[in-house]
Amino acid sequence: MICCLDLEGVLMPEVWIHVAKRTGVKELEITTRDEPDYDKLMKYRIGILKKEKIRLRDIQKVIRAMPPIPGAKGFLKRLKERYQVIILSDTFYEFAGPMMRKLDQPTLFCNWLKTDSDGFISGYVLRQRNGKERAVRGLKSLGFRVIAAGDSYNDVTMLKAADFGAFFRPPSRIAKEFPQFPVTRTYGELLATFLKVN
Amino acid sequence: MICCLDLEGVLMPEVWIHVAKRTGVKELEITTRDEPDYDKLMKYRIGILKKEKIRLRDIQKVIRAMPPIPGAKGFLKRLKERYQVIILSDTFYEFAGPMMRKLDQPTLFCNWLKTDSDGFISGYVLRQRNGKERAVRGLKSLGFRVIAAGDSYNDVTMLKAADFGAFFRPPSRIAKEFPQFPVTRTYGELLATFLKVN
Repeated sequence: MICCLDLEGVLMPEVWIHVAKRTGVKELEITTRDEPDYDKLMKYRIGILKKEKIRLRDIQKVIRAMPPIPGAKGFLKRLKERYQVIILSDTFYEFAGPMMRKLDQPTLFCNWLKTDSDGFISGYVLRQRNGKERAVRGLKSLGFRVIAAGDSYNDVTMLKAADFGAFFRPPSRIAKEFPQFPVTRTYGELLATFLKVN
Repeated sequence: MICCLDLEGVLMPEVWIHVAKRTGVKELEITTRDEPDYDKLMKYRIGILKKEKIRLRDIQKVIRAMPPIPGAKGFLKRLKERYQVIILSDTFYEFAGPMMRKLDQPTLFCNWLKTDSDGFISGYVLRQRNGKERAVRGLKSLGFRVIAAGDSYNDVTMLKAADFGAFFRPPSRIAKEFPQFPVTRTYGELLATFLKVN
């Protein structure tokens, strides 16, 4: 059995919100909840970063100082003793590097950033569209049963594609909209929920 | 880029040979080199184990005391800082547990054992036929480039399916038979060979 986990909101804080706070650039607090068009959102962020002279390495520095959600590392360790674990995230490998080191280097499927010659983020490359959902389907086609957990709208197709899906600390309106997925609030609860799956 | 590695011969010693030595049961030294029909080989092993009264937990005990190939843990650590790493092995999760703990729990795709009510191995479940090759193809279909390393015949289809493949300490006749794959003898050499791939 493979366990697929979202990263931000499940194991790590939300990167962009953390970056917005640390840099004091309020405009970076906008997320997919405010702007559902992801490409528009990323182009907006790239423009802001350039205007504010924030380079990729500045963001990486902020991320390096960002601790995992309390308990995340121990949870992941216990999970890995039971299941093969793969993190499915919409983040970028360039952001994820320092996060993965703090989580003992789990396997991560995500996306890539492009930078210009001055070190500013200039674009991004999606591994594929609907990357989380397609990863789950791909793992199933390799002969695995897949269980999954996420916290947000962008996890719902992944949870639906999995043999079993659960929410971890979702906003209440998302939990209400998708009542088929059990809601967990602590790592102990999430682990116990997974262990009940046959 | 994802790096797929064989387990036995690349990171850990050959399990069955180690078990044969530790238990003193010579007949368990037979490998796919002597009996190319895998199903026949496994049935033969299962018969020997039962005859010698060696249970799964006895084998697990032997495996727990088996150290990785010297340098394997550090190699894997360095590799994980550069690539997503997935171990593709023909072993069984029931054998692999104690090995994975020694290697800091990398992600592993392998197979399963069946045991009877007395704790003897009674059969096995392949995740899928040609599991290594199909895992590489599956990862490619998820948008990854795949590099791979193995040491033996059962790795060749995986090396062929990958964007780049290399041998690690192969028997010389296998290296001769497949001259398209570079031969590496140390972890430093293998890492350097991977890093040269664009």
